[in-house]
Amino acid sequence: MMLHVAVIGYSGSINNSPVKELRSICEEVGKLLARHGHVVMTGGRDGVMELVSRAVSIEGGRVVGVLPTGDEGNNHNEVRIRTGMDFALRSLILTKSADVVISMGGQAGTLLEIISAYSYGRPVILLENTGGWTDRIRSVLIDDKYLDERKTVEIKVADSIEDLEKFIKEADNGKV
Amino acid sequence: MMLHVAVIGYSGSINNSPVKELRSICEEVGKLLARHGHVVMTGGRDGVMELVSRAVSIEGGRVVGVLPTGDEGNNHNEVRIRTGMDFALRSLILTKSADVVISMGGQAGTLLEIISAYSYGRPVILLENTGGWTDRIRSVLIDDKYLDERKTVEIKVADSIEDLEKFIKEADNGKV
Amino acid sequence: MMLHVAVIGYSGSINNSPVKELRSICEEVGKLLARHGHVVMTGGRDGVMELVSRAVSIEGGRVVGVLPTGDEGNNHNEVRIRTGMDFALRSLILTKSADVVISMGGQAGTLLEIISAYSYGRPVILLENTGGWTDRIRSVLIDDKYLDERKTVEIKVADSIEDLEKFIKEADNGKV
Amino acid sequence: MMLHVAVIGYSGSINNSPVKELRSICEEVGKLLARHGHVVMTGGRDGVMELVSRAVSIEGGRVVGVLPTGDEGNNHNEVRIRTGMDFALRSLILTKSADVVISMGGQAGTLLEIISAYSYGRPVILLENTGGWTDRIRSVLIDDKYLDERKTVEIKVADSIEDLEKFIKEADNGKV
Repeated sequence: MMLHVAVIGYSGSINNSPVKELRSICEEVGKLLARHGHVVMTGGRDGVMELVSRAVSIEGGRVVGVLPTGDEGNNHNEVRIRTGMDFALRSLILTKSADVVISMGGQAGTLLEIISAYSYGRPVILLENTGGWTDRIRSVLIDDKYLDERKTVEIKVADSIEDLEKFIKEADNGKV
Repeated sequence: MMLHVAVIGYSGSINNSPVKELRSICEEVGKLLARHGHVVMTGGRDGVMELVSRAVSIEGGRVVGVLPTGDEGNNHNEVRIRTGMDFALRSLILTKSADVVISMGGQAGTLLEIISAYSYGRPVILLENTGGWTDRIRSVLIDDKYLDERKTVEIKVADSIEDLEKFIKEADNGKV
Repeated sequence: MMLHVAVIGYSGSINNSPVKELRSICEEVGKLLARHGHVVMTGGRDGVMELVSRAVSIEGGRVVGVLPTGDEGNNHNEVRIRTGMDFALRSLILTKSADVVISMGGQAGTLLEIISAYSYGRPVILLENTGGWTDRIRSVLIDDKYLDERKTVEIKVADSIEDLEKFIKEADNGKV
Repeated sequence: MMLHVAVIGYSGSINNSPVKELRSICEEVGKLLARHGHVVMTGGRDGVMELVSRAVSIEGGRVVGVLPTGDEGNNHNEVRIRTGMDFALRSLILTKSADVVISMGGQAGTLLEIISAYSYGRPVILLENTGGWTDRIRSVLIDDKYLDERKTVEIKVADSIEDLEKFIKEADNGKV
C-alpha cells in the first residue's frame, strides 16, 4: 500500500508573501515525495498546496486534491475529491486520509489541520522556520511533541530536507 | 483534466451471488476504463467495487477508494480516501467527485448513489441486465431518463460495452 | 427520550404549486406533531418544510432545521443545525437523526431522503396522494414496503391523518 | 432567533478527575444558560458535556447533543443530532451551529473545537482556571485574543460567572 502524504500550510497567491518565500522549499518537498512515489494529498487550492502539487506533477507524481464545496482547485490535481463540505470539514478528510502530514507556515486553517491530524493519530512533521503555526505550535507542545496527555502520536520537527526524508521513511515503516 | 468515473453496484463477497455472475462484465469495464486512462473511483469495498478495481489495477490503471469510517477497503485502492463518515454519507462524496457514474446491479445503497449522482448533475450509465436497482430504476424514470421534472441530467442505459464506451466518451467531451 | 420526527417533501415557494396545494395537510401534520410533543426536524428551508415548521411553531412545539451550508433557513427553526455541507449530505444527517420520517410530495431530493431513511433503518410514512416521489416510489417497492431484499425497515402508506397518527405511535413504541 | 451556545471541554467520567473538579462551575454555567432560555449545544457525551447538560435539563432548558456515529449520548439530550461522522467531524458541526462557544478544560478534542470555532467566526469564551487547553491556548494567542492575523473573531477570557454572562450577552447582541 502506497504511503499517503498530506502537505498543509499557508494558502494565498503563490506570488505574494508569505507563500512566495516558501517556493524553493515547497519545490524540494514536492520532488522528494514524487521521487519516492508517494501519494501526495493537499487541500487542492492555492499557496503551499499549489506549489507542492505543481512540483509533484512536473516530476510525474500523483496529486490528490481534497476540495471544499464550490471550488475546482488548482491545475495540478490528478485526482479531485469534491467533498461537498466547507473548508474546515474537508480539512479533516484530508488529514484522516493521510498516513503522515507535512506542515509549512500556515494560519488558523493549518492549525486546525495539525490538531486534527494529531487527533486521528497521524504523525505531523513541522518544517522548521517556515513561519506561522508550523513554528508557533512548538511552544505549547507537551514534552516537545504531544498535544495532550493521551500522547496519541508524535509531532516531529524537521530542520532540513534530509531530516524530513528520514521522518517520512519512519512513517512509511510504521515506526513513527 | 482526467475524467473521474465512479463505478457502483452490488456489494458482498465476490464469490457469491449476485456478485459472481457479474465478474466478467466487471472485468471488461475495468479494462476499458484503465485503457482510457480514466481515474476510477469506487466505494472501496467488496462486490462490484472489488472486481472492477482489481481489473483496473491489473491493467496498471488508477483506482481511488472512498471509504466509510472504520473500513480499510479492498487491496486494489491506489488512493484511499478515509472519509470518517458512515456508508451513506461517503457514497455522496463518491458520486459528487465523479464526472460520470456506471451502475451494475445493486441494493438500496446503490439506489442512493444513483439518486445522489442525479442530484449532483452527474450522468449515470445503467448497465442493462445486471440486476437490482440498475434495472429496477428504469420503470420509474420520467421520459425514460430523468428522476424529476428539473431534468438535471440524463440517465442512460447501455446494452453493451461498446455502448458504455460511447456514453463515457460523451461524458468526457462534456456532451452529456 | 422524545421521538424525533423528520418531515420531508416538496421545496419551493409556499405560495406556488405544488406546495400551496399541500398547505392544509401540512398544517394538520404540524399540529399533530406539536400536540404529541415530538421533536420535529426538517431540512429547514421552504416548501413543505416551512409549512409544517410554521404550524408546529404556532402550536408551541419544537422545530429543528438541519441546514445546508450558506442557508440560514426559514423563520420557524427553534434550533438551527448548520451542517457546513451541501444539500444532499445534510439530508442524510436529517434522516439519520430521525426516529421516523413523514413524506409529502417531493422531487429527487425527497427521493434521496426516502432512500437514505430506509438505509438507516428509519421507518418512512408516505402520505398518500401528496404527489411526487411520495406516490411514485410505491410502484417499485418490494412486497409493497421494502426497498431491497435486506428488508431493513418497513415503508408505510398513510391515507389519513388518523392513519399517520397510528404509524407514528407505533414508531414511538418501537413497534415499527 | 434564540442564541445557540455550545459548551465544550474535558470528556471522561463525571466522577473522575479532571471532570469532577469542574462539577460546580458546570452546574453554574448550565443554570445560567437555562435561565436565559438559550439553546445549549454539546457534543452529547460525558464529561463537561454531561454535567452542563444535566444542569440545563434540571432547570427545564433546551439541550441539543451533536453526536458522533455509533454513540447514543448521555441522558440529557432533548434533541439528538446523529451526524454519522467521526468525533472530530461532528465537533465542527457543533461549533459551526453555535453563535458562541464556552470552553472549560479539555484535551486535543477541545482544542480542535476552539480552533474550528475561531475559523467559523464564532466567539469563544475561555473559562479561566478550568485547566487543559482552555488555559494553555492563551499563551499562543496573538494580541491576547486572535488565532491568526486575519483576526476573524475575538477569543475572550472570563474569570467569573458574571464575566461569562456579560460576554454571552454581548454575543447575543451581536456585539462580539
